[in-house]
Amino acid sequence: MADLRIFPITGIPEVRPGDDLAGFIASAARDEGNPLLDGDVVVVTQKVVSKAEDMLVPVDPDDPLSHKPLVEQESVRVLRRRGDLIVSETKHGFICANAGIDLSNVDRGYAALLPEDSDRSARRIRDGLNHRAGATVAVIVSDTFGRPWRRGLTDVAIGCAGISAVVDLRGTEDSQGRVLQVTEVCVVDELASAAELVMGKATGVAAAVVRGVEPAWLGEGSVRAQIVRHHSEDLFR
Amino acid sequence: MADLRIFPITGIPEVRPGDDLAGFIASAARDEGNPLLDGDVVVVTQKVVSKAEDMLVPVDPDDPLSHKPLVEQESVRVLRRRGDLIVSETKHGFICANAGIDLSNVDRGYAALLPEDSDRSARRIRDGLNHRAGATVAVIVSDTFGRPWRRGLTDVAIGCAGISAVVDLRGTEDSQGRVLQVTEVCVVDELASAAELVMGKATGVAAAVVRGVEPAWLGEGSVRAQIVRHHSEDLFR
Repeated sequence: MADLRIFPITGIPEVRPGDDLAGFIASAARDEGNPLLDGDVVVVTQKVVSKAEDMLVPVDPDDPLSHKPLVEQESVRVLRRRGDLIVSETKHGFICANAGIDLSNVDRGYAALLPEDSDRSARRIRDGLNHRAGATVAVIVSDTFGRPWRRGLTDVAIGCAGISAVVDLRGTEDSQGRVLQVTEVCVVDELASAAELVMGKATGVAAAVVRGVEPAWLGEGSVRAQIVRHHSEDLFR
Repeated sequence: MADLRIFPITGIPEVRPGDDLAGFIASAARDEGNPLLDGDVVVVTQKVVSKAEDMLVPVDPDDPLSHKPLVEQESVRVLRRRGDLIVSETKHGFICANAGIDLSNVDRGYAALLPEDSDRSARRIRDGLNHRAGATVAVIVSDTFGRPWRRGLTDVAIGCAGISAVVDLRGTEDSQGRVLQVTEVCVVDELASAAELVMGKATGVAAAVVRGVEPAWLGEGSVRAQIVRHHSEDLFR
């Protein structure tokens, strides 16, 4: 299997509502001498996608909890509360802290909501990149989530385009010739996590490229359709 | 920030109880023309660690559910049952399906239990690699876990050595100069996921190298001490 290379796209300017995010990314990659290539997976952080899509909401700049009413508004159900922390199911079907809303890396006095439909956001960015960069790429929109039972946050995919969210290895044989029973690997979450390793939290790097991804994974995909679990099959709701 | 390169270590022979796994890994990397270097993070899958440590238990080869009594034995508490699936807390503190026990990639008639102490396993492999390869590396022992609310499995860390499991970015400033409140990133889980992308499930590749990891993350670390959540702070148990 080919090696993977992961590198950040630096030089993306501050993103404002209506900005051509795909254009920014394609230009920044080219300017760094790393133009996008066919088969690249471009991971873009939720925050800049929300900014470009004008998902910014004014909040009281002097109240550190000013976004809490937005959390209730963006949630369809609260699963747990402890202190200021709310773990809820968002209207998009994600279960995460504070409905994915936070104040970091946003202008003072604003909170950034999640994109309305992150798969659609990924498709738009992908279309833009394919046009701007002249390469057929896949796009993942990533966000930083916690999880039960384990400390620490990891980046996961909240939207994707041009790549299957889950790769189903059921029915393939293991090294002993035994048919594997369940091996549905969530490759877009693994790719989002891999990209986070070169982005850091505080440096303003809003996108990264994973180069060398297995070509068989590329194609149609959707986080909402493939990853978000139905209530009926969920043991922890 | 430096680019990351991730590559599989192929050519590790079938591992038997008592084998020198570190020696196998160091030799295979060297033989492939990719000798280990200072600062490399070597991700090793649980299955070969369990084999080398003789965590194999005989089971009825004709009964596909023969490992289920072992699941109960290795668990301290069952969280959920559905059909054949048991989600439990293992004696190590991990919450996962079937106590981490499965039959794939193990000789017919055997099941592989998790290592007794995966952090200790990682330390031993690290000591062996540092000696055999003449390079100071970090080691992560990885396993494939599901998670609530999202479909698909991802690889996570069950043990580590020579790297901090969680990198605490609390108190650092975001790009707006605002102090970030909570950004504890679980880098070892992200690294385990990244490594899985080049390993595949069915090809017998038992280890991978992540090269170019931020040097500040290297040092003392423990999955059990840093990642496994205490009952008192867990909202989903």
